[in-house]
Formats: sequence, structure tokens, C-alpha cells
Amino acid sequence: MEKTKYVKNLPPLKGIIVIDLTRVLAGPYATMQLADLGARVIKVESLHGDDSRKFGPFYKNISTYFTSLNRGKESIKLNLKLDKDLNILLQLIKKADVLVENFRPGTMEKLGLKKNNLFKINPKLVYASCSGFGQTGKMSRKPAYDLIVQALGGIMSLTGYEKQDPVRVGTSIGDITAGLFTTIGIQSALIRRNITSKGSYIDISMLDCQIAILENAVSRFFCEKKIPKKIGSRHPSIAPFECFKCKDAYIAIAAGNDTLFEKLCHATSSESLLKLKYFKTNDMRLKNAEKLKKYLEKVFNKKKASYWVFQLDLFGVPVSKLNNIKEALELQQILDRNMVVDVFLKDKVKIKVAGNPIKLSNFKDKKYRKAPPSLDQDRKRILSDFKIKEK
Amino acid sequence: MEKTKYVKNLPPLKGIIVIDLTRVLAGPYATMQLADLGARVIKVESLHGDDSRKFGPFYKNISTYFTSLNRGKESIKLNLKLDKDLNILLQLIKKADVLVENFRPGTMEKLGLKKNNLFKINPKLVYASCSGFGQTGKMSRKPAYDLIVQALGGIMSLTGYEKQDPVRVGTSIGDITAGLFTTIGIQSALIRRNITSKGSYIDISMLDCQIAILENAVSRFFCEKKIPKKIGSRHPSIAPFECFKCKDAYIAIAAGNDTLFEKLCHATSSESLLKLKYFKTNDMRLKNAEKLKKYLEKVFNKKKASYWVFQLDLFGVPVSKLNNIKEALELQQILDRNMVVDVFLKDKVKIKVAGNPIKLSNFKDKKYRKAPPSLDQDRKRILSDFKIKEK
Repeated sequence: MEKTKYVKNLPPLKGIIVIDLTRVLAGPYATMQLADLGARVIKVESLHGDDSRKFGPFYKNISTYFTSLNRGKESIKLNLKLDKDLNILLQLIKKADVLVENFRPGTMEKLGLKKNNLFKINPKLVYASCSGFGQTGKMSRKPAYDLIVQALGGIMSLTGYEKQDPVRVGTSIGDITAGLFTTIGIQSALIRRNITSKGSYIDISMLDCQIAILENAVSRFFCEKKIPKKIGSRHPSIAPFECFKCKDAYIAIAAGNDTLFEKLCHATSSESLLKLKYFKTNDMRLKNAEKLKKYLEKVFNKKKASYWVFQLDLFGVPVSKLNNIKEALELQQILDRNMVVDVFLKDKVKIKVAGNPIKLSNFKDKKYRKAPPSLDQDRKRILSDFKIKEK
Repeated sequence: MEKTKYVKNLPPLKGIIVIDLTRVLAGPYATMQLADLGARVIKVESLHGDDSRKFGPFYKNISTYFTSLNRGKESIKLNLKLDKDLNILLQLIKKADVLVENFRPGTMEKLGLKKNNLFKINPKLVYASCSGFGQTGKMSRKPAYDLIVQALGGIMSLTGYEKQDPVRVGTSIGDITAGLFTTIGIQSALIRRNITSKGSYIDISMLDCQIAILENAVSRFFCEKKIPKKIGSRHPSIAPFECFKCKDAYIAIAAGNDTLFEKLCHATSSESLLKLKYFKTNDMRLKNAEKLKKYLEKVFNKKKASYWVFQLDLFGVPVSKLNNIKEALELQQILDRNMVVDVFLKDKVKIKVAGNPIKLSNFKDKKYRKAPPSLDQDRKRILSDFKIKEK
């Protein structure tokens, strides 16, 4: 690309062409980020389309699941088992900046799309694969889903309560973090390409990404030789940093340091706690977390959650009630930050989806997103733009 | 940057200079990604250093928490309340590519670091702020911690079991996802800068990021007008996709489509289920999930988890046991993929930390990382590299 003059509201990835072979969640979440940031994402779909077109919930027969992940992308239908369609894909790849797929490892080769050949066709290609376990290692070709990588990667052993039934993190964090790391990998390769004029291959494993988000559990295991356990709503190394039951509902309190603990004591008229050596430092409070919790819960139980949220907030203690999805999505702050945007579908049907949390200067954060494509919707334009003639 | 010839093993962000004012988790997690990808990250610390230098767990008096997040960065200590030190920071910013901070909104201005002034000094600067609630909106200046944004953003209302105590996602997903989105924002701005030669300002809110990862809960709420609830280890729209109790332990099963459900029935000698209309399609199985669970749990209860993992795997059903952190970190696949790397500290002390899940061609994924800096460790070299004379 040529350096051009400064353009107002230039989407950061404007001009980047992404050929998107991904399906369902991890891959489409990555290419959704790229589309939201201005890339042209061309979704190449099989004859039946992305499976997730059939995933509920539905609104007027439209999959809202598919809508939320594929807004603003284009679609072309190709039967990659036919030479003529495979040839179209190769011509698309030839002129693309990015290729993304989340097939099970081995599938691309079976389709006749060997990595080395793709780089021969397009040496500047940034080609990312996102799979359950990665392209290498003995587990590589095993099937993976979000729940499986959550179970294998250890996050479920940290979430919930000991001696209770297992808990899955309530969103598909296995897919979503892999999608985010895929986006980071692709962007880093685009930045490098600017220096080298050469493409890159990126290999992302959902399971690897689970390890990358384990945070201090990793060092706790390696350094203390202890296996971290499930601790409900508590934080493993800060106290009080957990949920407390008030008269009618729970509140979350994050007294992340000594000053905040002092404020908490003042806000709850529990100044006596400040004199006890049990609770003097964070380490002491952590050791005596149960004792502290019992004391505080007695205090909180006397009044309603809304009272305590007001009171603690007044004293500068980080506090909140536990929002359900309705409350979260209707938070004024979330609406003010344009985190709920409209997707306009045909016949004036409108679906609300989560917005883009990356707020960039000189890039207007629009209040709507373009509709997701119907299957094969953009065939003609894509073929014409890429100067491809169908045989 | 000039286009140069292709360099083998060129780190993708080689040459990018990051001035890092971040502390504790969300910000340092973002700049850790940048450092892992080859950027030079200069951590500017207050007189007492990043608070997390004092966070446990400790190993030979070294904070492993700090180590895992700050490996490979440099450190310079500055007292930003003194003009002479503020001036040093401004000179660093002048020559940097990226500036990142995660102060509470308003703090940078109080320090005399107004955004517009920074862009005057360095029009090519990519400047990212990562805060609890973002730079705009009425909640902007409120204090935020991971637990608070988990509570406000709705993920806790989806995680755990109804009528049981609240559950926090077992890692600081509030900080970590904000860190990942910050990295994506920064990289997108670097890509745009390559076209425009102009910098950008990026405003990331931890709470916004929580909304962005809610996945289908958002569309379920807006389209079905139902408030999604906690469903333990189940998936909201696929069945069977949950944990089952075997004789000795739990296993996770993800039968994501009809074919996999068929395989599951064969693997458990439950072919009779295939004849029942209750379980014919995913929608039917979802409606009758309790019934299905009861039946399958009877079957699984007859044998040990290891037997069922072997058996289901043989039939191609995605399955796994529920790993604790030790088991996750000792998985051969994780070791083979270099997802546990060594950080070498002074006196031959070695600490193991999570590796980088972004595996890129022509970028050697080293088996170790450079140590995190001791406070002010790189002062001399930084000042000399930036040609700054201390007064």
C-alpha cells in the first residue's frame, strides 16, 4: 500500500482483504473483529452455508447467533470439492491479504489447499489457522469444542465451588479468547509484512489460549507446588475481594488494598476491625478470609444490597450489585459507550448485538452494523472485483 | 520504517517502542503480548514500582505474579510529580511508537500529560488507555477491579448454578480480555499509521469488553426477551454439551451435532435413544436436556471416567476429563506446543510461566523469556538510547 494523506475516519484495517473460511465461533469471532475494524471480509461458505446459520436463537427465522458474529461480512458459496470452485478460491487467495480458517488440522490439505502452495500463489499472504489443539502435537487432529478446552485447560478447576458440580464459564471463553489471539496474530503479521513484504503462517490452538489466560494459577502451581482450587466468588490473593449476601441480594466488593479496606471499615461502621491484627495486611486478611467474611456478612445482612452499594460507593470502595444480562445490557454506561448496536436486516427487521469495545480516534463508532450476508449474496460483485470468470 | 529485505526470525513487532505506564494486570497483560511479539517495552514505574511487585505468590522473595506479566520488559523509575522526571517521560514519548496506561481516567491530565499535548509532541503516537469503565460516560471515574466488571457485565449471572452462591470466573477475565482488546486496538492503529503516518488514541473499557464476550446471551436477551440464567456446566443452545458424573469423577462431553450424538449413543450402547423422538434433533435434545442427562448419567455411573474418556474418544465423540491446574500444565500437548516457558532470574533461579499462544512462522518460539526488570534496572541504557541527559 502507498502512503496516502491523512484521511478522517479511516477505518484502521481499510483496504485489508480477508478470505474467511471459518465457521461457527472462534474463527468468525476473529474475522468479526477484523470486519469491525474496517477490513473487507469475504466469507467463503460450503453449499449449506456456515452451520451457525441454523443455530438459535432465531428472530423472524433469522439466526441471531449467526447475525451477531457475521455482521458486515460478504458471502460467496463454493463447493471446494469441485475443481472450478477450488480454482475460484485460489484466485481469491492470490489477491487477498489474509486467509483464516478453523477447520480441524488436515482438512485444508485434503481440500488440496497445502500451505506451501498457498504461499507460492501469494507470498504476501497472512494465513491463520485456529483449531482446538493446534497444528502440531499428538492431540492435533482430535475434535474440540469450547467445553472440552475449558475442561482440559484448567479454568473449570478454578471456577465454582469445591465439592459441588462442575461449572462451565458462562460464555464460550475457549472460542472467544482463541478468536482474540488469532486477531492479534494476524495483525502482528500484517505489521511485520510492512517491513519484510512477506506473509506469515499463524497457528492458534484454543487449548494453548486457555493456558495463556490462567493468570496467577500458573505461578501458584509452579512456585508453591500447590494445586489451586475452586474458591467461589473469592480472589485467590486479595481479600476482601468477593461477593457478600445482603438482606435481599448479593453484592461484589473489591477492596484491593489496605486503603480500600480501611474505607470499607468506615463505610460499614466496622472500625473495630482495623484494630485486629488478623486483618492488618492483605496477607493476613487472606489467611483469615473466612473469619472476615463471617463478620462482614453479619453487617451486610442488616440492610438491602442497594443501600450497601450506595454507601460503599460513597466511601470510594469498589462495589456493585450482580447484574443479570438485562441489567448489564441496559446500563447507561454501556449504552453511552455504544456497546449495543443495531444490525438492520431485510424488511426493516432490526437485531441488537454487542458493539466493538475498541474505541479509536478518527474512526467513527457507528450505531449500526451492516447485515450479515445471506448465503452467496455477494458472488457477482466478488467475482467481478477479483476479475474472476466462472467457467 | 523503511522496507528492508526479508529477515529470518524477525519478531513481528521488532522495532516498535512501547512506553508502558501500566500497573498490575490489564495493561501489563497487553504490553506483555507486545513484548512477546518483539516490541521493546519500557516500563515507567513510580518510586515504589508497580504495586504487583509486592503481589504473591513469591518464590525466593520474587513475585511470580509480577514475573509472569513483565518478563522481557525494561524498567525506569520516574517521579512524575517532579518536572525533571516528567520531562524525561515526555522525551521518551516523543520517540516512542506506542504509549499505554491504565490509570483511572483523569490521572494523566492531573500529571500534566494531556492527550492533545502528547500528540503535539509526537503526532505518530499510538496512545492507548485501558480503564475500568472507559474515558467517557458517568461511571468513567469510578474505581474498578476485575470482580466489579465481572459482576456488572453479566458474566457472573451466566456462570454457576441458580440458587447457589455467586461464582467468579476463576481467572481475572475482566482484566485479561481488556488486555487482549487493548493489544488489538494498538496493532490496528499501527497498521493504520502505516497508511496515514498519523497516530491514534484508543480508549478501552474493561466493562465494554465484558459485553463484547457475552456471545449468544446478548441475542438471547434481545430476541427472545428472556434473561439467560446460570446453567452449571451446560451449553445454552447445544445438548448434550455438559459434564457427567462417572463412577469416580466427572467428564465433559460436547456432542455438538446430530452425527456426534449418534456416535455418543453407539459408544455408550445407548442406541435405543436414537429411536426416541425426544432426542431426534439438537432442539429436541435441548428441550429434554434433563431427561437425557438422567439417562446418560445412569450409563456413565457404571464405569470410571478414564474408561469413558477412552471409549468416547474411540468413537470420535469430543470428550475429556476435568483437569486440575497440574494436569493442565503437564499435558504433553501443552509441553509440545511450548506453552510453558522458563524465565531465568538472577542466581540461576528459574520460574515457569505460560508461553505465547501466537505461533508464527519465521518467529522462533523460544523456550525461555528474559527476566522481568528490577525497578529502574535499565535507566542508564534507556536514557542513553533516547539521548536524554538528566539534569
